[in-house]
Amino acid sequence: MKLTLVGAGPGDADLITVKGIKALQQANVVMYDALVHPDLLDYCRPDTLKVYVGKRRGAYSCVQEDINPLIVHYAQQYGHVVRLKGGDSFVFGRGYEEVDYARQHGIDTHVVPGLSSSYAVPAAAGIPLTTRGLSESFWVVTGTTKEGQLSADLTLAAQSSATVVILMGMHKLAEIMAVFANCGKTETPVAIIQNGTLPEQQLVIGNVETINEKVAESGISNPAIIVIGEVAALPQIDLQTVLSAAKVGL
Amino acid sequence: MKLTLVGAGPGDADLITVKGIKALQQANVVMYDALVHPDLLDYCRPDTLKVYVGKRRGAYSCVQEDINPLIVHYAQQYGHVVRLKGGDSFVFGRGYEEVDYARQHGIDTHVVPGLSSSYAVPAAAGIPLTTRGLSESFWVVTGTTKEGQLSADLTLAAQSSATVVILMGMHKLAEIMAVFANCGKTETPVAIIQNGTLPEQQLVIGNVETINEKVAESGISNPAIIVIGEVAALPQIDLQTVLSAAKVGL
Repeated sequence: MKLTLVGAGPGDADLITVKGIKALQQANVVMYDALVHPDLLDYCRPDTLKVYVGKRRGAYSCVQEDINPLIVHYAQQYGHVVRLKGGDSFVFGRGYEEVDYARQHGIDTHVVPGLSSSYAVPAAAGIPLTTRGLSESFWVVTGTTKEGQLSADLTLAAQSSATVVILMGMHKLAEIMAVFANCGKTETPVAIIQNGTLPEQQLVIGNVETINEKVAESGISNPAIIVIGEVAALPQIDLQTVLSAAKVGL
Repeated sequence: MKLTLVGAGPGDADLITVKGIKALQQANVVMYDALVHPDLLDYCRPDTLKVYVGKRRGAYSCVQEDINPLIVHYAQQYGHVVRLKGGDSFVFGRGYEEVDYARQHGIDTHVVPGLSSSYAVPAAAGIPLTTRGLSESFWVVTGTTKEGQLSADLTLAAQSSATVVILMGMHKLAEIMAVFANCGKTETPVAIIQNGTLPEQQLVIGNVETINEKVAESGISNPAIIVIGEVAALPQIDLQTVLSAAKVGL
């Protein structure tokens, strides 16, 4: 009995790792999420059981508490279960809960990291989360906490010179921008990327003050990634201009 | 003339992406760093020119200011240059400077993100940077700033509930631990991982107070990744125990 967590990457099917493909080729069962590229299932053998456990879209929907025992069930019945999750399984993926639960049931567990959307989506859109002279750290926060509130960490992040990346935060965009505005950062660039790394990728760039309006105009929505910091302007302005305009004092 | 930045991933040769391999197969020239797994060069065609531009190890050593014009030179002479860099090129990789320089010289640029060691190395060692109830954000900081000082952001990070990841920080370990101790975090778990994802991987776990001694005992050194936060204890203690011991109040 074996569970391998595989990160499928941010969208583009070619952004899976070789190690991830090898795991798919060996799987007896693949349990996959909504955000996983459908082409990835073609790496499996024809006799591999493919189980959709996405939490959105379509009629059938699974909650985490259903998925954990399902993993154990399939591992006991079939042997090797691959859990294929969008992005990386250990970055806001609840993957560790699955590993922990499976281990408690005597299942051998393995982890194959995947490209996390947090930096790979900005990179593919031309935004480096760090760049000498502009940003020497980055902070990744979820917009959707267990209690449904904004993370208290966001206020500290807004005070720092870190590039701040917010996943699953579009429904709280106005609230998030208010936190940054309160720290005097109304002019800090903000980029929002929807469907990153896919052909239908959409990118909107503004600043803390203007981004809400730009989002409304463009119709960009979830699932999207919010990047706040001087680097967010780089797809529109060249590095030297951003460097001389920035007052981050690194 | 074309430049493709390819992230080689954290160490294990199978942690490169399919898209990265496709770029290597098309390259006329590959310029590669010290931390890149040598097996990755086997994906290139036999006639591909392979140029080592590592910044450490061996007799020849390149500085960034040499690499930028070299990229332009090879692109002009040979066509498609792949710049193969350890981890991800846009996370402390100075990759954006290369893209910017190449563009200024009329070269078409592309980016293939790679697995960043910042989260992939902890994941492969059994440490999720975020986990419900333990950590709802993570902060990645470099220990080596342009001016050689500790980043001012570290004090804010130490006050937050974020998991803090420090790259290239082993030479400042005592100083970093002092920042966390000053925030009353002497008992916060700390993990240090050297050669992550490779067969020779080494993992040392302690807390803010004990880690310096444990590092001295084990002989673990650079290149290593420092993870500070409740999640760092997970390879030794099960999730439920860590959850009930943690007082992060998420």
